[in-house]
Amino acid sequence: MSKVTSNDFFYSGLMDEASTANPLGIGVRLGDVTTFPGLNTLGLSINLIELAAGGIVQIHTHPRASEANFVIKGEVLFGFVSTTSVLYAKVMKAGELSIIPRGLVHFAINVRHEKAVVISTFNSQLPGFASIPYNLFASNPTIPNDILAKNFQVGEAVIALIKSKFN
Amino acid sequence: MSKVTSNDFFYSGLMDEASTANPLGIGVRLGDVTTFPGLNTLGLSINLIELAAGGIVQIHTHPRASEANFVIKGEVLFGFVSTTSVLYAKVMKAGELSIIPRGLVHFAINVRHEKAVVISTFNSQLPGFASIPYNLFASNPTIPNDILAKNFQVGEAVIALIKSKFN
Amino acid sequence: MSKVTSNDFFYSGLMDEASTANPLGIGVRLGDVTTFPGLNTLGLSINLIELAAGGIVQIHTHPRASEANFVIKGEVLFGFVSTTSVLYAKVMKAGELSIIPRGLVHFAINVRHEKAVVISTFNSQLPGFASIPYNLFASNPTIPNDILAKNFQVGEAVIALIKSKFN
Amino acid sequence: MSKVTSNDFFYSGLMDEASTANPLGIGVRLGDVTTFPGLNTLGLSINLIELAAGGIVQIHTHPRASEANFVIKGEVLFGFVSTTSVLYAKVMKAGELSIIPRGLVHFAINVRHEKAVVISTFNSQLPGFASIPYNLFASNPTIPNDILAKNFQVGEAVIALIKSKFN
Amino acid sequence: MSKVTSNDFFYSGLMDEASTANPLGIGVRLGDVTTFPGLNTLGLSINLIELAAGGIVQIHTHPRASEANFVIKGEVLFGFVSTTSVLYAKVMKAGELSIIPRGLVHFAINVRHEKAVVISTFNSQLPGFASIPYNLFASNPTIPNDILAKNFQVGEAVIALIKSKFN
Amino acid sequence: MSKVTSNDFFYSGLMDEASTANPLGIGVRLGDVTTFPGLNTLGLSINLIELAAGGIVQIHTHPRASEANFVIKGEVLFGFVSTTSVLYAKVMKAGELSIIPRGLVHFAINVRHEKAVVISTFNSQLPGFASIPYNLFASNPTIPNDILAKNFQVGEAVIALIKSKFN
Repeated sequence: MSKVTSNDFFYSGLMDEASTANPLGIGVRLGDVTTFPGLNTLGLSINLIELAAGGIVQIHTHPRASEANFVIKGEVLFGFVSTTSVLYAKVMKAGELSIIPRGLVHFAINVRHEKAVVISTFNSQLPGFASIPYNLFASNPTIPNDILAKNFQVGEAVIALIKSKFN
Repeated sequence: MSKVTSNDFFYSGLMDEASTANPLGIGVRLGDVTTFPGLNTLGLSINLIELAAGGIVQIHTHPRASEANFVIKGEVLFGFVSTTSVLYAKVMKAGELSIIPRGLVHFAINVRHEKAVVISTFNSQLPGFASIPYNLFASNPTIPNDILAKNFQVGEAVIALIKSKFN
Repeated sequence: MSKVTSNDFFYSGLMDEASTANPLGIGVRLGDVTTFPGLNTLGLSINLIELAAGGIVQIHTHPRASEANFVIKGEVLFGFVSTTSVLYAKVMKAGELSIIPRGLVHFAINVRHEKAVVISTFNSQLPGFASIPYNLFASNPTIPNDILAKNFQVGEAVIALIKSKFN
Repeated sequence: MSKVTSNDFFYSGLMDEASTANPLGIGVRLGDVTTFPGLNTLGLSINLIELAAGGIVQIHTHPRASEANFVIKGEVLFGFVSTTSVLYAKVMKAGELSIIPRGLVHFAINVRHEKAVVISTFNSQLPGFASIPYNLFASNPTIPNDILAKNFQVGEAVIALIKSKFN
Repeated sequence: MSKVTSNDFFYSGLMDEASTANPLGIGVRLGDVTTFPGLNTLGLSINLIELAAGGIVQIHTHPRASEANFVIKGEVLFGFVSTTSVLYAKVMKAGELSIIPRGLVHFAINVRHEKAVVISTFNSQLPGFASIPYNLFASNPTIPNDILAKNFQVGEAVIALIKSKFN
Repeated sequence: MSKVTSNDFFYSGLMDEASTANPLGIGVRLGDVTTFPGLNTLGLSINLIELAAGGIVQIHTHPRASEANFVIKGEVLFGFVSTTSVLYAKVMKAGELSIIPRGLVHFAINVRHEKAVVISTFNSQLPGFASIPYNLFASNPTIPNDILAKNFQVGEAVIALIKSKFN
């Protein structure tokens, strides 16, 4: 049988380097039950998000958790969309807090010319992350173009164009 | 104080006419707590979906429920996308059952030349319905074009084109 | 480790033949976690019930779920009894919906001369089914006659008579 | 606004007299949220049951709670029936503990010639109590005789006989 | 596979001898999932507490459950302290019931010159028991004296004195 | 009826001044449902804690939530004590994460000569805060000295001494 030690409850993994040298300008360090097993049964998790100037957290949902975001550094525009398609959005400065009700579509973007750092907290040890752009245009297998075209009310060529960007 | 009667537990609203004479070819009759108050505290709900030939249920999520779909008539392609962007999809015939884990992106399309009828059941009396196309391209206020462009990796003109279809 | 496939989320078992050639005139096809493992952790299930003319769903309870019944074909009398012994009952036609709050005693009977088909949905992947007649008069071991006689305020001969029908 | 006082958390109502001078030989003192409002949101309740010699707790279910029974005085036969109609039953003496999983049919009977006292505890502040004999044979309105006859596989005269006892 | 038997649902362990011949004058018999595995998934538990004259149940918390206490014999002072440090306390006689909201600090003391017996019930099969005196002054490893001194606003000598009593 | 606005989901209250010029050297800014009503039903909350050099978060419990602490600045010793009185403690630097299972006794202390800042997150919109020193020695009304003396195994004079510090 495994033995519980102090290491089970203390985690340094959010200090690891997470480069933002990618097209989205985002670095994510996960503090959920997959990286920090001590969270098992505790019902919460914390991620650290770093955004380069102009960097974005893609439009996404967390299927299993509400979220609260605390800005540690910089200024970040947070937005989420309700089930009736109302957009609630605001630029938050260091020290401000924004929330995302369970399961709703949301995004964030660093609106300043310097790095931003955000703590994202969840009331699940495994909230899940579903990227809407990848869910829609880069799934495996792919969603047929005609279905996407009907959904977005454009020709299939537009869909094919968007899909080509995710290869 | 209100008095409970048999009418509180029996509901005929799913028999109402729900025309499919719309661009999506879909008619929805809601059997959730907003239309059938007897569901309050019961933790479940049922919608009846009618799809004209080629009709679609837009890509959407239910933020607060898992779903099971039973095909009553016709053949319907159901698809959902996991958090790792794997698409699980299959054409289901009358009598078949498909499920959508809580909060995941999904859609349905009538793949035959006749009307299809589906019963959608949820483990919440108010599952919510977030249309992904409307959340993304027709919210109020709108998500700025540059943010959508970054998310979908296309120029803002493509975004503007899609948005124009939702006016 | 097992690998998730589309088959985990799509189920054809409700199409299987379930004969109603039995004394109760009932055929049941289970769509719960015992027959459809993909329901695990999803928190819902669906059964398909077929009732011959005059067929009945025995008086029973589901210890772990609320229930909603949607009539696909025919006319069915649904009834449930509250904790204060009020009977709520109504004949429901195809397209109508009835609900049973968690754990209450209920029954259904096909009141027409043609087959009826009902979809029963639950907010548990394993709602359980406790037949009240079998629980009372055909358990193993049996409930002593004197206890049943006291409960139903009749002589033990009446109890013995009922029990004899269940052998 | 109401003010919380010590009286909200301390309850003497289980000491009230509850006569067992009735046909079932049972006296019940309720300690649930209807009699002891301080239980609100606490998620538990306690009843005190007194049984005269030969007294019974009718066959019943609690739709919303598991139960544990502790015998304070006397000897009581507890029995419950599983969903597969297995009867689990045993005579419990003072100091012994028996449990009833959520929602299952159960009963108790004082098997000695002296009074018995039992503490019944529940993991709900409002577990509900559904008497199976009254649910079946004394509901308002009544369940039609033919439905009961089919369920219990006897003639309607037997059903009418049982019903007559509950008037 | 293990087979369920009646023994899984009936428990005599609360009848075992639990001596009160200790400094606190307390005897505890546990009826939780560690001693009575049948409680697994049932969501409740019952302990039997015996207190010698003047005996005490140490100041403690149950991290995972609300509690209800029923006095079987004797007179016991129950007290709990709210998050705003209001003490709710009362001497309860045999037949009286007191409650402790989830997680709050509480204690009990036998205020008479005869033995007292209490049934403690919980809405968890594993409520946990955290002794405040041991948590504070006898943990392993120990909480440093300077931290305790700051918390209790006394010199470290006072802390060392208290700690010495727990060796 | 009130109307939802963006202000309901964005909160600047954690930026307010919270002086650490007090004996404990602590400043707390609450981001729970009492200060930020938008958290209602979301099931999470965030506090910002500032500790002067040597400042402490008193020994306390949260009766209704698990907790995760992220150090923004400085070095803080976090410690919690299990139900079996094992102390799990470690000095955490900026960027490190520690967790406290639901309901357990815990504390924090700034172990450096500069200010420390910590984000405390909870999986409840109203976790509660019970100060153990105040619960024990400064409740209203007070816990009698003899009860505390028995619990802490010291004379009543020691108890009176500690109590005098909290006046």
